[in-house]
Amino acid sequence: MIHRLTVVGVGLLGGSVAKAARARGLAREIVGVGRDAGRLRPALVEGALDHATTDLAAGVREADFVVLAAPVQTLERLLPAVWAAAAPDAVITDVGSTKATIVEAAERLGAGRPLAFVGSHPMAGSEQSGYGVARADLFTGATVIVTPTESTEPRAAKGVTVFWESLGAHVAVLDPRTHDRVVAAISHLPHLVAYALVEAAARAEPSALDFAARGFKDTTRIAASDPDVWREIFLDNRPALRQSLAAFRAALDEVERLVEAGDAARLQAWLAAAKARREGVR
Amino acid sequence: MIHRLTVVGVGLLGGSVAKAARARGLAREIVGVGRDAGRLRPALVEGALDHATTDLAAGVREADFVVLAAPVQTLERLLPAVWAAAAPDAVITDVGSTKATIVEAAERLGAGRPLAFVGSHPMAGSEQSGYGVARADLFTGATVIVTPTESTEPRAAKGVTVFWESLGAHVAVLDPRTHDRVVAAISHLPHLVAYALVEAAARAEPSALDFAARGFKDTTRIAASDPDVWREIFLDNRPALRQSLAAFRAALDEVERLVEAGDAARLQAWLAAAKARREGVR
Repeated sequence: MIHRLTVVGVGLLGGSVAKAARARGLAREIVGVGRDAGRLRPALVEGALDHATTDLAAGVREADFVVLAAPVQTLERLLPAVWAAAAPDAVITDVGSTKATIVEAAERLGAGRPLAFVGSHPMAGSEQSGYGVARADLFTGATVIVTPTESTEPRAAKGVTVFWESLGAHVAVLDPRTHDRVVAAISHLPHLVAYALVEAAARAEPSALDFAARGFKDTTRIAASDPDVWREIFLDNRPALRQSLAAFRAALDEVERLVEAGDAARLQAWLAAAKARREGVR
Repeated sequence: MIHRLTVVGVGLLGGSVAKAARARGLAREIVGVGRDAGRLRPALVEGALDHATTDLAAGVREADFVVLAAPVQTLERLLPAVWAAAAPDAVITDVGSTKATIVEAAERLGAGRPLAFVGSHPMAGSEQSGYGVARADLFTGATVIVTPTESTEPRAAKGVTVFWESLGAHVAVLDPRTHDRVVAAISHLPHLVAYALVEAAARAEPSALDFAARGFKDTTRIAASDPDVWREIFLDNRPALRQSLAAFRAALDEVERLVEAGDAARLQAWLAAAKARREGVR
């Protein structure tokens, strides 16, 4: 049982953490921190939050569990203030889509003042954003990747794992760099590609967007994602994204060569192998 | 009212044509033609077809409306036999995803024996295939692109337009080459890209596919599409696909350059423009 849960950033993920914790009676008190008091009101009115504040230090100070749910680069800027304000026994995690830089930043701060921090990444985002789309069941059945390192306090890894499991999620453990490589391939690259597919279709003559059917809509749904969030993710995970882009371009070149060569048999085999892999995805 | 509707190829699209025509009482008699009598049985048993045959000429001979629903290259091989067997007053269309080659083939045949042919492309495909997933409402609200040329008999364009509208679809008209360019951008390129995204994720170390969430699943859903169908589409629409791939690579290079340059402001603007275009898709 958490006494005071503080959520920094009450959007889709942070708001869903508050709603889910409330629905499951996980915390006695839930505090939301945001830049804009007006934007925090709906969560207060709905009862997902007990208190809301724009003062980060005041919001974090008396919490025993802190979830940082701001965009990744914003998070890195806030971390020193969180570190200074947090209680010595607080458990702290974040929900950012990249893990190496935030974990490194936390470990630098931890060298000065040891705190129980471990990174998390709930694989439950959406092209929609804001508290308006937050849901108490967002994490039910979702995978949350938790990224401890050698210097992570065991009670952080334990507490954060139990927390996500209590919200209905499955927890997987990866080290931060492996996490960043995996999500570059499974999430960041597909986002970048979806944006580029929309641009390519828009530039066709006549614009092909007028003829979009279900296939295109599903494939590019994530191109409606928040540019504020995704700009920061792309910039933060540059090295892994570069690697994923190279692997993608190699695969695309391969299949294009088979098309250009008119090699029906090998093209068929290539597509069938990809189809089988896709069908293996649970 | 059609006396005898013959559907050549009773899979997702052909089966849905039969079911939709049956449900709407559009044809007195519906005949299905396929290579394998066993595969035609479910449509007979369910009453979507009145007769089923593996004899193309016999199936087509007495039809006043013929829908060719085989994969595009198969269709081109079957066309001379259809042409030879069809009644002089029959209206003929197809449902292939590429239009230039089939329309050219029909016009070559039409020079010898004028028949009322016009190409169609119902934008209602799926990654699933076969009669088992055919639905009477597949075309309800879907766009069907009809591709007349200067040599198309007016009664073909008229009859086929009325036919699709009677099945609940919206009809758009494009010339065959424009059609092929548009669908390369909106459908063929996204399919090729989805297959390549799956390959890239599968080749990551560790395989990123184990961490697939909703974003990846939606983006790559169409990579589970039938390789028999898509091999033929990619090969048939090679020139337009090449153009679309070039436009896509240019867009991807553009956004990658902004990421690599760490140009947050221009990256933000680029992503926001793509997001706005995606949100404009109805």
